[in-house]
Amino acid sequence: MLKDRPFTFINSAMSADGKISTKKRKQVKISGKTDFDRVDGLRAGSDAVMVGIGTVLADDPSLTVKSEERRRKRVESGLDENPVRIVVDSQARTPLDADIFKKGTGKRIIVVSRSAPADRVEALSKKAEILVAGECQVDLVEMAHGLKNREINRLMVEGGATLNWGMVRSGLVDEISVFVGNLIIGGKDAPTFMDGEGILEREEAIGLELKKFEPMDEGIVLTWRVK
Amino acid sequence: MLKDRPFTFINSAMSADGKISTKKRKQVKISGKTDFDRVDGLRAGSDAVMVGIGTVLADDPSLTVKSEERRRKRVESGLDENPVRIVVDSQARTPLDADIFKKGTGKRIIVVSRSAPADRVEALSKKAEILVAGECQVDLVEMAHGLKNREINRLMVEGGATLNWGMVRSGLVDEISVFVGNLIIGGKDAPTFMDGEGILEREEAIGLELKKFEPMDEGIVLTWRVK
Repeated sequence: MLKDRPFTFINSAMSADGKISTKKRKQVKISGKTDFDRVDGLRAGSDAVMVGIGTVLADDPSLTVKSEERRRKRVESGLDENPVRIVVDSQARTPLDADIFKKGTGKRIIVVSRSAPADRVEALSKKAEILVAGECQVDLVEMAHGLKNREINRLMVEGGATLNWGMVRSGLVDEISVFVGNLIIGGKDAPTFMDGEGILEREEAIGLELKKFEPMDEGIVLTWRVK
Repeated sequence: MLKDRPFTFINSAMSADGKISTKKRKQVKISGKTDFDRVDGLRAGSDAVMVGIGTVLADDPSLTVKSEERRRKRVESGLDENPVRIVVDSQARTPLDADIFKKGTGKRIIVVSRSAPADRVEALSKKAEILVAGECQVDLVEMAHGLKNREINRLMVEGGATLNWGMVRSGLVDEISVFVGNLIIGGKDAPTFMDGEGILEREEAIGLELKKFEPMDEGIVLTWRVK
């Protein structure tokens, strides 16, 4: 595993049958208040929170810390209210009016590839720092180096499924925590929290170690260490 | 929920990201010895074990009890060595040389619809009892009645994903146990243990209650009660 990169963890929530939304990609409430608060705590304790462009376009998350007290404590420690918000966005498609820009204070980084349209990059550069990595697609390893150089030592990845897979596949993830909720969503085409290419043979599987299990709300949080 | 039906539970194993095989439907070892033994115990303690025709065609499982001691105990209790083996097979496509017929002793039931080809049904009737339920597809509710009438009081469902979903959707399932394994499989098209149509709205989700969680081998078994 690459050393010169942030400690990185993925956080997600899935139904008991492994789905993160309906087959129409409609969001479904999977966890409850305690888990929302746990996730907020994880954000507040991270240097940066990252999502893929697909998640920005589909859900438009603000990725802010919700608890006023946690924001206050960050400021008291000399930090911004919110961790750095990062979008992995090969073609610089992040909308200029995305909630990630409109809501909350703090730094934003848009990670683009060298083939991103110059006018889009130029427009985004007024709202965020631009990190360039990779030719046609963002090179995640190069990106991880770049983030570490920017003093991001603890990185939280909040999806989507393509970015989660890319990060794990590239050996850039240390830990995965998944809230497993008390419902069945079903659906052959309902998305899961890791998609992308996936493995073809057992030997390619990414090995994990179960680090913690913790019943929460009506479900359970499983924390895995990536081997 | 229908009363006049067997107590029914689904047993499955999935990767930490909710997959049951690779995207090419290649089976992947997810659990370990302890879980295999747990599953064998569940089989031995059931009146019948059921799979869908897709699973028979893809994996050709024998569905026998593997432990000699468990088989002996069943015989000592006046039972067959193996629980009744059931295939849900609307069009009577179960191969006559399937392992379900070739391996182990005990009764088999093939559940077909009224539109199943007569010659196929006739051929299968020499190897198994035929239960007819539904017009073009097996009517699972009618089937559940039929099984209860045949004194099947405890039914174990072992997939595939389409049958699992159909049984849950029809309100025929009491419990679901899932071994969550210590690996990531990934893949947008990798199958999960519940597929079928799936829900479109949160209100349609099937509610569960977490009954038990038990670390096992390198993973964890989650047991859910269907609400």
